[in-house]
Amino acid sequence: MAEQQTPTLSKVVGVLGGMGPAATVDFYAKLVRHTPAQRDQDHLRVVIWADPTVPSRQQALLAGGTDPTPWLEEGVRHLMGAGAEIVVVPCNTIHAYLGPVLADQPVEFLSIIDTTVRAIQRRDARRVGLLATDGALASGVFQAALDAAGIEWLLPMPSQQEALMGVVDAVKAGRSEQRLHAQVQEMRSDLRERGAATTIAGCTEVSALLGDLSAGDDVDVIDPALELALRTIERATRS
Amino acid sequence: MAEQQTPTLSKVVGVLGGMGPAATVDFYAKLVRHTPAQRDQDHLRVVIWADPTVPSRQQALLAGGTDPTPWLEEGVRHLMGAGAEIVVVPCNTIHAYLGPVLADQPVEFLSIIDTTVRAIQRRDARRVGLLATDGALASGVFQAALDAAGIEWLLPMPSQQEALMGVVDAVKAGRSEQRLHAQVQEMRSDLRERGAATTIAGCTEVSALLGDLSAGDDVDVIDPALELALRTIERATRS
Repeated sequence: MAEQQTPTLSKVVGVLGGMGPAATVDFYAKLVRHTPAQRDQDHLRVVIWADPTVPSRQQALLAGGTDPTPWLEEGVRHLMGAGAEIVVVPCNTIHAYLGPVLADQPVEFLSIIDTTVRAIQRRDARRVGLLATDGALASGVFQAALDAAGIEWLLPMPSQQEALMGVVDAVKAGRSEQRLHAQVQEMRSDLRERGAATTIAGCTEVSALLGDLSAGDDVDVIDPALELALRTIERATRS
Repeated sequence: MAEQQTPTLSKVVGVLGGMGPAATVDFYAKLVRHTPAQRDQDHLRVVIWADPTVPSRQQALLAGGTDPTPWLEEGVRHLMGAGAEIVVVPCNTIHAYLGPVLADQPVEFLSIIDTTVRAIQRRDARRVGLLATDGALASGVFQAALDAAGIEWLLPMPSQQEALMGVVDAVKAGRSEQRLHAQVQEMRSDLRERGAATTIAGCTEVSALLGDLSAGDDVDVIDPALELALRTIERATRS
């Protein structure tokens, strides 16, 4: 048996997850699947803090519900305590709250929003559809980043936005049936007809439902969870 | 919008993972999928420490390679620091090393080996096939537990045991093609013909390859990762 090589240690990746749990599984699966590795020891060191009891972001952003910030601060504390050198959060909506939480932390934070905007710029798309939760839209977190990059954005029609929220809740309840896929396809197809070169699957529950879309296979959609996984791998393995 | 209910907090589940990464994804996916939940806040709080740089268990058990114990101790320290109240390890082979590591820790440890033996006893199977790595077999960790429970066990023929190690390495390298499934099916079918009432998929890479087999759908196989996920959910939610 060959001598074991001493692996070059990657940076420790901290994942603030649980928002929701299936989306965290999906992100972690993408992180593992896309890491170039022939054996365990080639993979990234990852610590995941998944606390699904973080209060609902929708309630907080839309209805004056409990501010999730203390839960996020606790999660970041756990990740830092475990030695995280990079922090990522596979939930688009919660990015409305992350700035102050991570501002003074001695850690590299990779924003899913910024990562998605970069992915759009790489494809040179000028007009995109945006599938995001009501709460994320109310926070303006995606729209502000797209505006700043000079990218036009379109939202689904109100009835489809309502259907989108139903899809997100269904995935959070553990469902993934074909009807949900069909609904998302219809949203994407409407946005395409209205001039969107591509559509952002801007909620990690939608990412989880769509599964592992690689950029080349499905040019009509940008998966922020996949883009964040790819960027995380790139940053964690950079020497 | 309805008032949010204060969730009953589950115990914090600590997962010592990364051995290998795809197996940890598979275990976490099973944990999430089988938790009865209608919304994020119904799910378990989970912390995962996934360090794939733990030295090869095969080399340690078979060829005098580096003892993985210090890596395990570090992982448990991180999990305890993050407040883990239950610790699980979705890797069968590493259970050969876990006893001393967890013996004096003020935490509930759920062994994948014991959990699997209980699952066999529930099905009242008296003679089982055992698919496990060369290292796990050399350690005797499964055989001792089966012997103690009065359960007869059969191993694959040598050529199939060699094929099994190839399957495990392929999954660790990110592969999951149909040929690998067919090889595992052939092992199971040979063991069945030799009198095994059921077969233990006793390596979490095999669990990951087989995916989400529920007990009722596939009576010929026992998936230790699934059994451990179900037991973890039961223990974490018990008040």
